[in-house]
Amino acid sequence: MKVLLIGASGTIGRAIDYELKDRHEIIRVGHSSGDYQVNITDSQSIRALFEKVGSFDALVSAVGKLHFGALAEMTEKEYALGLKDKLMGQVNLLLIGREFISDGGSFTLTSGILSDDPIRAGSSASMVNAAVNGFVRGAAIELPRGLRVNAVSPTVLVESMGSYAPFFRGFKPVPAAEVALAYAKSVEGAQTGQVYRVG
Amino acid sequence: MKVLLIGASGTIGRAIDYELKDRHEIIRVGHSSGDYQVNITDSQSIRALFEKVGSFDALVSAVGKLHFGALAEMTEKEYALGLKDKLMGQVNLLLIGREFISDGGSFTLTSGILSDDPIRAGSSASMVNAAVNGFVRGAAIELPRGLRVNAVSPTVLVESMGSYAPFFRGFKPVPAAEVALAYAKSVEGAQTGQVYRVG
Repeated sequence: MKVLLIGASGTIGRAIDYELKDRHEIIRVGHSSGDYQVNITDSQSIRALFEKVGSFDALVSAVGKLHFGALAEMTEKEYALGLKDKLMGQVNLLLIGREFISDGGSFTLTSGILSDDPIRAGSSASMVNAAVNGFVRGAAIELPRGLRVNAVSPTVLVESMGSYAPFFRGFKPVPAAEVALAYAKSVEGAQTGQVYRVG
Repeated sequence: MKVLLIGASGTIGRAIDYELKDRHEIIRVGHSSGDYQVNITDSQSIRALFEKVGSFDALVSAVGKLHFGALAEMTEKEYALGLKDKLMGQVNLLLIGREFISDGGSFTLTSGILSDDPIRAGSSASMVNAAVNGFVRGAAIELPRGLRVNAVSPTVLVESMGSYAPFFRGFKPVPAAEVALAYAKSVEGAQTGQVYRVG
């Protein structure tokens, strides 16, 4: 399969790359690195990416920014970042990418454990990750041509505990390589509308 | 308790009013009717409402618009309506209302069954309702002064089946009066961070 990997240089992206590269052709996309570049908050940048890449069989998105901050300091402005980037950035990869994807192709988006298991300073993450999961469930039943969409919802990574540990006390971290398996299940399996929780 | 009921003139709003009015003082708020008016998509309108009402003990929101449409015709523009209105409108009622609510007060927001049980043309509803639920779970653990926040997630109403039935085949509708009980549980109970599913 020709797999378009958005966020290829990130910790999860690199693990997905390693998991899939022996079986598939990986097109690596980053914000400023990789084979192609994209700014997922800009629908014109997304369209330009697909026009350059041409048709593909699977899109895997392991990107998305949002604001972490104490609820006491959050206003609508701080929530807007995650809604525009991690939520609508990934949604737009599907809304525009569906014009270019092969029959039977799949989209795999990334949400995260905070949708269900909240932490302090994580209210935007809880909102945005839940929204990604909801979108996946809703969109899956309306996709044509045998297209599929799933989300992977990872817990905190072993590789990220250096900086994230104080925020995730009591969470059992998982290696990025284990999270990558869920993306392989989505890309190479046959299910749709699923949220694959890892951790 | 002094209960601020946003969306008092809607089908659910009227049922909440009927359920709570014998035990509480209800301040009825609508877009163009009621004791006070508010446009929840405008944070200045929300702030003006709270400045007029003064302190209160519970806020119940039974409002929120979003776009229903076939996935094939949805672009980021159609999703933006629900993100601005039903999601961030309700979130802003909490973010601004927290400055005015009494110690131990509660916020009760409205999501809906499509977060988990999708229908055709409902991908925005699935996204937005899930986001409301995620926000509630995330925000609940950071609210100060004994403040609480819950969501009520109703299925389709008996009273709405005249127009909604074709979209909700196989769904068991519930009377608005039964949905109203979940709002009473949120307002008069002691839990926080809950999603009360009705139907």
